[in-house]
Amino acid sequence: MTPDAVREHIFTVDTVPLKYGHGALRELGHDLKALNARRIALFTDRHLAALEHVAIAREAIARAGLDVVVYDAVTVEPTDASFRDAAAFAADGAFDGFISIGGGSVMDTCKAANLYATHPDDFLAYVNAPMGQGKPVPGPLKPHLACPTTCGTGSEMTATAIFDFVSETVKTGIAHRFLKPTRAVVDPTTTYTLPVGVVCSTGLDVLTHAIESWTARDFRSRDYPTDPSLRPPYQGSNPWSDIGSMRAIELGGRYLERAYADPADHEARDALMFASTLAGMAFGNAGVHIPHAMSYAVAGQNHRYVAAGYEDDKPMVPHGISVVVNAPAAFRFTASTSPERHLEAARGLGADTRNMTPEHGGAALADRLAEIMRNTGCPNGIGALGYTESDIPALVQGAAQQQRLLVQAPRAPSEADLAGLFRDALRYW
Amino acid sequence: MTPDAVREHIFTVDTVPLKYGHGALRELGHDLKALNARRIALFTDRHLAALEHVAIAREAIARAGLDVVVYDAVTVEPTDASFRDAAAFAADGAFDGFISIGGGSVMDTCKAANLYATHPDDFLAYVNAPMGQGKPVPGPLKPHLACPTTCGTGSEMTATAIFDFVSETVKTGIAHRFLKPTRAVVDPTTTYTLPVGVVCSTGLDVLTHAIESWTARDFRSRDYPTDPSLRPPYQGSNPWSDIGSMRAIELGGRYLERAYADPADHEARDALMFASTLAGMAFGNAGVHIPHAMSYAVAGQNHRYVAAGYEDDKPMVPHGISVVVNAPAAFRFTASTSPERHLEAARGLGADTRNMTPEHGGAALADRLAEIMRNTGCPNGIGALGYTESDIPALVQGAAQQQRLLVQAPRAPSEADLAGLFRDALRYW
Repeated sequence: MTPDAVREHIFTVDTVPLKYGHGALRELGHDLKALNARRIALFTDRHLAALEHVAIAREAIARAGLDVVVYDAVTVEPTDASFRDAAAFAADGAFDGFISIGGGSVMDTCKAANLYATHPDDFLAYVNAPMGQGKPVPGPLKPHLACPTTCGTGSEMTATAIFDFVSETVKTGIAHRFLKPTRAVVDPTTTYTLPVGVVCSTGLDVLTHAIESWTARDFRSRDYPTDPSLRPPYQGSNPWSDIGSMRAIELGGRYLERAYADPADHEARDALMFASTLAGMAFGNAGVHIPHAMSYAVAGQNHRYVAAGYEDDKPMVPHGISVVVNAPAAFRFTASTSPERHLEAARGLGADTRNMTPEHGGAALADRLAEIMRNTGCPNGIGALGYTESDIPALVQGAAQQQRLLVQAPRAPSEADLAGLFRDALRYW
Repeated sequence: MTPDAVREHIFTVDTVPLKYGHGALRELGHDLKALNARRIALFTDRHLAALEHVAIAREAIARAGLDVVVYDAVTVEPTDASFRDAAAFAADGAFDGFISIGGGSVMDTCKAANLYATHPDDFLAYVNAPMGQGKPVPGPLKPHLACPTTCGTGSEMTATAIFDFVSETVKTGIAHRFLKPTRAVVDPTTTYTLPVGVVCSTGLDVLTHAIESWTARDFRSRDYPTDPSLRPPYQGSNPWSDIGSMRAIELGGRYLERAYADPADHEARDALMFASTLAGMAFGNAGVHIPHAMSYAVAGQNHRYVAAGYEDDKPMVPHGISVVVNAPAAFRFTASTSPERHLEAARGLGADTRNMTPEHGGAALADRLAEIMRNTGCPNGIGALGYTESDIPALVQGAAQQQRLLVQAPRAPSEADLAGLFRDALRYW
């Protein structure tokens, strides 16, 4: 038996089709007609519903002679209850097309609503095990055009919908390839009115997505599946995901600090929006790992931190912040598995690595990432979110639940390792 | 009216899904079942039909309990007559799935056969104007898994089928998004038994594809379409195609000379196969231009050159050779439109550009490309194919017919320019 016969040696690429450019929302009516959709559910949030971009989209849909009903009750960081509410709306409306205009919360809510309206079942049926039953989605969903308005989550490119499972105090989600939107429609002008705090927290999410998919375990480290249909949707880093990951790292390294320094720098916001989509393509293919696994605990257990630039004034850690605060610690930890790759990421981010050798990779990457965090108004580690040493055991328990993500790491952390990572993440400068 | 309202400012990405890796052909039965195909037409050529890869594919299809009928009459450089023959086979067989295993000729023939079997019409109906009527394909075709066996044409990623229109002594084709294969299944082990001459001629095609899509006119140089459905499939270079183009340039620059120097260098062949698919993604999105427009005349009017490593001993210029012999001349010509971009391509190919400024871009790119040609056994310009100064007027006439391609150039050549380009292409070293 050759090594090829026991280790994975194949990867697949199934990208969400993309339309990108200024004014792309103005073509939504045309795009929906091409999909034979006539009665459209438009998902957004209350804030966006009052803004120009949703008006532009509604006008474009009406111009094409299609019906549209708006659902604007999406909440930032959705919950099982908010997913159920959205699903009930979708089921009642007899829609044959879906549009989401918003950040990751809006796009994920739309994915879930489309799922339960198209293939009704118990709410927990499709939720990832062990929280839910992890039942495969039985067939394609209705057409869904996903229109991100933050340079952000990359959800427009992924097969996942994430929510807070409130009674369990944990984030989990639904993941199946049929959840992928039919097309991503990315109009970077939607970011021009975003508060700079939102641009940076979502931009830091982009950077972390890209570095996580770049450093994710090699796809060849898995066993070859006994049946090709058992190949996981998140395959590990591979020659295709690497290309998008690295380009997103380079764009983030070049433009995120510019976007913070000058909120009117549209070129920077355009580039970050493109980087977000590229990173979504890459991590939607390769997967993310430790920083995201840790983030669910960081976001879910917060009771103190209130973010600038977001609507609510209740304690809430924006997703990008909850991820990036773990990232320098995590990449210092993973660097031993692929020092050269970590050094390349540091170089891609803009670090001067000319006099460095691979063993500097982890430190160089962590340092440059912390520098970008510091230069873009990011909290200084989880300590700045209000966590202390005494919170670490609970954070470890929360992160350890995310085995789905931890197995994507190039080096799986034990609970003791996770404790060390949270300790390292308390403060960076 | 803002500039955005008159110039294009949107691009789209519609990539053929990909499966890549050693042994990917062994999973064809699974892939076909997932597409609900039961009765399969397998297109290949007589040479390949006797080889291991087709046997592996047939075995995989049979193992899945599906019927398969082989059509092995595909000829290198197909013609209108050979397309018609393949279409008749496809129409008679009542197939609900298609597989092509071979080079560009096989994949293109399968696209055409699938088209005419699914949407019967006069042969010229779908052929590009002005040779044919350029009628849009009315709907999706049957599932088609395209399995390239050369690191080559990238046809598995494109919406085009090219053929020799014999009575008109010209190459033309059929181009419509519905011609895109359902999935590309790329198994680089199929290249391990290829003669090195074929690896190099197809590899030079890859390199030229990548540099042409990298240097193609900017997508923003077109007018904004009056209707989004009028946006052309070949959109010009854009931030997405640039990523795949540059990566394919880098891989070709690093591995093509290695593949020539050591026919047993499997790592080089794997990399070239991946570069071929990446270049196909990129040029299938951005388009190609002058070297390809010139190539149709060079290949179509040849009566003397016999290629090494190909089956027939009749005069025939392999596609990649017919393209690359024009490329250094063409890039010297286009360099003035974007000198920095040409310099970056030279750097990507491996030229030492540290002491160069953008005005060196055209010469640096042409010189490095000619160096790779020389190091991989490529004929020294069209002179080495037997063309002389006296052939140039006829070559110009042939190339000038390819307006579909010439409009993609960053600088459209006049007939006088084309004459100068063919003259420059007579000999490079």
